[in-house]
Amino acid sequence: MNETLTRLHRRKSVRVFTDAPVDGALKTQILEAAVQAPTAGNQQLYTILDITDQRLKDALAESCDHQPFIAKAPVVLIFCADCRKWYDAYVEAGCTPRAPGPGDLLLAVDDALIAAQNAVVAADSLGLGSCYIGDIMERCAFHRQLLGLPRWVFPAAMLVLGWPTDQQRERPKPERVDLDYVVHENGYRPLDGPALRAMLNGRTGGQDWDGWVKAFHARKYDSDFSREMSRSAAAYLADFVTPEEPS
Amino acid sequence: MNETLTRLHRRKSVRVFTDAPVDGALKTQILEAAVQAPTAGNQQLYTILDITDQRLKDALAESCDHQPFIAKAPVVLIFCADCRKWYDAYVEAGCTPRAPGPGDLLLAVDDALIAAQNAVVAADSLGLGSCYIGDIMERCAFHRQLLGLPRWVFPAAMLVLGWPTDQQRERPKPERVDLDYVVHENGYRPLDGPALRAMLNGRTGGQDWDGWVKAFHARKYDSDFSREMSRSAAAYLADFVTPEEPS
Repeated sequence: MNETLTRLHRRKSVRVFTDAPVDGALKTQILEAAVQAPTAGNQQLYTILDITDQRLKDALAESCDHQPFIAKAPVVLIFCADCRKWYDAYVEAGCTPRAPGPGDLLLAVDDALIAAQNAVVAADSLGLGSCYIGDIMERCAFHRQLLGLPRWVFPAAMLVLGWPTDQQRERPKPERVDLDYVVHENGYRPLDGPALRAMLNGRTGGQDWDGWVKAFHARKYDSDFSREMSRSAAAYLADFVTPEEPS
Repeated sequence: MNETLTRLHRRKSVRVFTDAPVDGALKTQILEAAVQAPTAGNQQLYTILDITDQRLKDALAESCDHQPFIAKAPVVLIFCADCRKWYDAYVEAGCTPRAPGPGDLLLAVDDALIAAQNAVVAADSLGLGSCYIGDIMERCAFHRQLLGLPRWVFPAAMLVLGWPTDQQRERPKPERVDLDYVVHENGYRPLDGPALRAMLNGRTGGQDWDGWVKAFHARKYDSDFSREMSRSAAAYLADFVTPEEPS
């Protein structure tokens, strides 16, 4: 395995950082690597918010499902899918563009996460730890006001970065399921009961399967934050207009 | 700049491949690196379709905006946001889960693209070229049938991989815009006319700005494939149910 592959295998999320700051030049290296990522038609359909104001970090630590470690992260980046800037450029050039649709949003979310993962890989190569925070998709009205997000700009992912503590460095990485369950040849293959049980068997830590899955369901999928994420995502999506069927 | 950063900077999309096959062991290394990517709650909310059937590649080359090079790619991977498999696991365990909502879909799209970009980085480290095909989001009904996609499984991105030709290796990488336009400190900053003009000035190749942007608008944003992407994305989204407001 080459060094890049080894790094991709070893990289795990870091949620506790030392008090050491992250040098501005390092942050710039990470951002420069992020924007070198592949992007649809070289459009860079994203905007990265670099959160340096401690009051904003504190607010985000609360609004993103009450995770205090966000406030302590030296670097907080929000990767926004941005369907606004090209729209504005088209208007500036004298075009009368259609309103962005859900396909434009999803293509921009793709672009944003491709760039974000480049930032993760770049940070890891510099010894920095990182953690994605999906909760930035929640609380549409609050985050729009806090971050000044206009229509057609959607915060697709937040990334917090910093120097990992020894404990975080030594923490075992949670295991992924066997590749066979994730990779399907030529077509989607719904997993039946036995396959689903086998897939998650390594996760339950000896607990009975049904009980472990039920507890996971209650903690994650049936949680307030999970419902809030869909309510909020629907609020963002409401601004995106579906084009009419071709006549 | 360390080796990883150098690679992230140099990597560019490859759309012409040599006739050399990609060894199965290499493909497995790429897939193993993909699934080691960060994932929300270790859920791996994606399924990767590995398209090996030449008839499927031929069909995708047509359905994804008529791009013949797709049919010639030794490796074709479709990264699907998958809100189905955990739903089925919850049912198997005896839960009565809510239907997935748009937040679940967007979180799964995040997961899928994070994994896809790990595949891109892994492939690059092995000397393989890659190109994202966003057009896989188009033609919902056709792709659902072609790939056996059930409800709540959305093809978020396609990735084609192979050995780059010399011409592709030597092709200059398209330049990104200055970091200042992409990174905003603490809040979103709409770009005004002069900023938009400055941002895209390097793109026009000496052509007048308005003319270049108008031509880009006509070719990309106002195109049939772009409208089709939003029409198709809306069809996928229609299956995702927004939870009611908390009472």
